[in-house]
Amino acid sequence: MKGIEYEYIHEDLPNKSALLLQCNPVHKKLPVLVHDGKPVAESLVIIEYVDEVWKEKYPLLPQDPYERAKARFWAKFADEKCVPAMFATFYKQGEEQEKSAKETQEHLKTLESGLEGKPFFGGETIGFVDISVAWIVVWAQITGEIVNIKLVDEERLPLLSVWFQQVLENPSIKECLPPREKLLEHNRAFHKILMAAST
Amino acid sequence: MKGIEYEYIHEDLPNKSALLLQCNPVHKKLPVLVHDGKPVAESLVIIEYVDEVWKEKYPLLPQDPYERAKARFWAKFADEKCVPAMFATFYKQGEEQEKSAKETQEHLKTLESGLEGKPFFGGETIGFVDISVAWIVVWAQITGEIVNIKLVDEERLPLLSVWFQQVLENPSIKECLPPREKLLEHNRAFHKILMAAST
Repeated sequence: MKGIEYEYIHEDLPNKSALLLQCNPVHKKLPVLVHDGKPVAESLVIIEYVDEVWKEKYPLLPQDPYERAKARFWAKFADEKCVPAMFATFYKQGEEQEKSAKETQEHLKTLESGLEGKPFFGGETIGFVDISVAWIVVWAQITGEIVNIKLVDEERLPLLSVWFQQVLENPSIKECLPPREKLLEHNRAFHKILMAAST
Repeated sequence: MKGIEYEYIHEDLPNKSALLLQCNPVHKKLPVLVHDGKPVAESLVIIEYVDEVWKEKYPLLPQDPYERAKARFWAKFADEKCVPAMFATFYKQGEEQEKSAKETQEHLKTLESGLEGKPFFGGETIGFVDISVAWIVVWAQITGEIVNIKLVDEERLPLLSVWFQQVLENPSIKECLPPREKLLEHNRAFHKILMAAST
């Protein structure tokens, strides 16, 4: 969206590279953006950094401070509420899994309220929240398919479902997302490992 | 610090006001800032909002995008790592409490690395991270006193300890912090309730 050239470096997570450990010694996690030799970690921090350094082309955060606060609020909500509930749905079983699935659905319903009256969280175009949240919905669908619980239901989440289709059609998003089949296969294998470890 | 006049509204948390529920329907939590009739929730979002609306006087975030990213990284780290570990130290017991206390100490040690080479996280003056983190250290000390485990040790955390003394001497911080004895008394009572509920 910003038209920035970048190099994507693949990480083998069970064997983290020296570069990753050096760039993100605190969390030892992806993603990390390295710009001018300096590392920036944490997804939301990276998006704001990119928006501030390359501010002319395609601003991701709105200009108005109140709208910016709302965007930060929803991105934080998705990160801190939707993601842990969804993870729990993925790795738990039985009653605990059902409880987490219900929580995920409730949090996604709350998140959907941020879409009322506009096609994207960012308004007429994809912005900070849309970018932060898109992978969560992708992953919610994949998780739902693996654990056989529908987490993103068109009837229950009509706005979020329409939004999601729009987001997936965006060329920049399309370019960055791995193919669905590959994601599904990878997460099925990961799920098997988790289930084997928990029994 | 910004010289803004404000009205502080006390909330009785066991009996949340209609105003609080209306202003923060998602989390139903404090703090909420109401400005021009519009609510802003979540501590870090509020601080950034205040900094963006009243940007001339006493900027809280640095101007440089990389320094801003680092500030957001540390504020997020304190919020997501130090706070949950500290809470667990407060409400757990026995081995679990010891484990949480150790985690808290380790996270505070990591946080301290953000202070290397400067008196404040913000550099020469108190900024975004200092404001976000100050209450955490206050609460770590109070928790330590109540559960009888020293969480902020001067020998183990020399930079953070000196920083903390400097922060407490800041007139704006002094004005906003409740008196230590009152905080201790309030949290002792809260701790008793939690312990009674857990047995």
